[in-house]
Amino acid sequence: MSQAFDPGPVSEPFASLARNYPGPDSYDPDRFRVEWGPIFHRGRLDGSARIVVLGQDPGQHESIAHRCLVGEAGQRVQGFLWKLGIERSYVMVNAFLYSVYGQPRRDDVEQLLKQTARYRKRWLDALLDGTDVRAVVAFGAIAEQAFLRWQRTASGRRFQGHFEPLTHPTMPDATARPGSATYRAAMKRLLDEWNAGLARLDGALGPNRDRKRTLVPYGDELQPDDRKQIPDHDMPPGTPPWMRSLKQWATRKGSTADLKRATIEVRVPAGERPWQ
Amino acid sequence: MSQAFDPGPVSEPFASLARNYPGPDSYDPDRFRVEWGPIFHRGRLDGSARIVVLGQDPGQHESIAHRCLVGEAGQRVQGFLWKLGIERSYVMVNAFLYSVYGQPRRDDVEQLLKQTARYRKRWLDALLDGTDVRAVVAFGAIAEQAFLRWQRTASGRRFQGHFEPLTHPTMPDATARPGSATYRAAMKRLLDEWNAGLARLDGALGPNRDRKRTLVPYGDELQPDDRKQIPDHDMPPGTPPWMRSLKQWATRKGSTADLKRATIEVRVPAGERPWQ
Repeated sequence: MSQAFDPGPVSEPFASLARNYPGPDSYDPDRFRVEWGPIFHRGRLDGSARIVVLGQDPGQHESIAHRCLVGEAGQRVQGFLWKLGIERSYVMVNAFLYSVYGQPRRDDVEQLLKQTARYRKRWLDALLDGTDVRAVVAFGAIAEQAFLRWQRTASGRRFQGHFEPLTHPTMPDATARPGSATYRAAMKRLLDEWNAGLARLDGALGPNRDRKRTLVPYGDELQPDDRKQIPDHDMPPGTPPWMRSLKQWATRKGSTADLKRATIEVRVPAGERPWQ
Repeated sequence: MSQAFDPGPVSEPFASLARNYPGPDSYDPDRFRVEWGPIFHRGRLDGSARIVVLGQDPGQHESIAHRCLVGEAGQRVQGFLWKLGIERSYVMVNAFLYSVYGQPRRDDVEQLLKQTARYRKRWLDALLDGTDVRAVVAFGAIAEQAFLRWQRTASGRRFQGHFEPLTHPTMPDATARPGSATYRAAMKRLLDEWNAGLARLDGALGPNRDRKRTLVPYGDELQPDDRKQIPDHDMPPGTPPWMRSLKQWATRKGSTADLKRATIEVRVPAGERPWQ
């Protein structure tokens, strides 16, 4: 078998960032799942990235896979980048290093971002200050707020690239039942907005692509082919292929709130079981 | 928070070994849990190892932590190395790249080792041929057989270091109920044998230690302090501390044999839940 892998944050300044990171001191365990450890990134840390994707926070798939944006949202983002001809030259990081426990309340997101700003700034400085990154896409309001906060710092003011704040890829799923009229309307609004974003990013990126590809916008609905599998070259060595597939494989389970918070069930998806 | 990490197989020849490895072609899915991916190593791949530990196969803790020997057996091995003053200068690899499904039958172990020998040889060559490793410890009969098979190859014949085959650290647990007379007798036999092995390794290693420490042999029983926690510098970046603790945290679960094979439940151990 031949399978590429991502070496992870092994070179500076990222190695230091992966050795020294905030814990419960700035990420309150009542608000963040610090117990699952920090999830740092997904993608290129070798200077070859031309676009940075900023997400919100890791979920259960990310906690086990040790990479950002590998679940449903990540697969939709991967499809978004694919449309731009971007297959390798990206880095994804989240606004929050740990999974948010429960929903962040709109009135205290600014406070949570403030008390976690310092470390996030070190990552954004490393990724954006004096690098060849041409554009930043923020998915969701929290990611947008995190970027705008960084943009007010000295290094943020130096960043000349394009900034594209977009709706979070699973917003429709979080607000309506898939298949319902409300869901379809929310998805159409999202895809219309993403299409406008794609056109702007297409201009901002110029010739900086991994593959020359005519930009084909989304239709009114998200098609199965609009999700793309997470590439092997983004994952740690030896990651089983189903951990980057389009299937769900990690679930929070437990008969009490405490046990559910403490537990992730990892299950090889049906159709991916070589002994059957 | 400050936490060291192991970069993993990012440099050659290990990077190539982590990109190209045997799958179901030589590891029959009826006999090996190939679905959880290969588990390559634990410890130093930078040439600083002075001792190589050869284990049998990874279990459920190893599948999630992506490192060899991090569960109960690994913690006993860590305590064994500690007695020798070895805290960093080791590499651990397993005879089998994937977890054995069920018990290997004594009569076909040789066949399983044969059909997986080629790739294992590439690892052993990289770790032992022309390196500064002074000793190899094999824990369990399968590890011993794997080493002896390699020793018959050209590079194996060149290896001048000491070879120490020892009983597998959890053999007593596999054969008797902890606390029973049979268990205590099996453990005493194991520890007597390990003590003799420690004395020989003490001689073979000479001054090649991380810490000068008077060799204190095991008593008649394995004491709690004889297990040592897996160090942070052996684990991938951002690994939660409880994944290298002395507590169990991964369990195979499922109401049918198929579901049990497909499922690992990961649970933050009691006492390690920061929100409580």
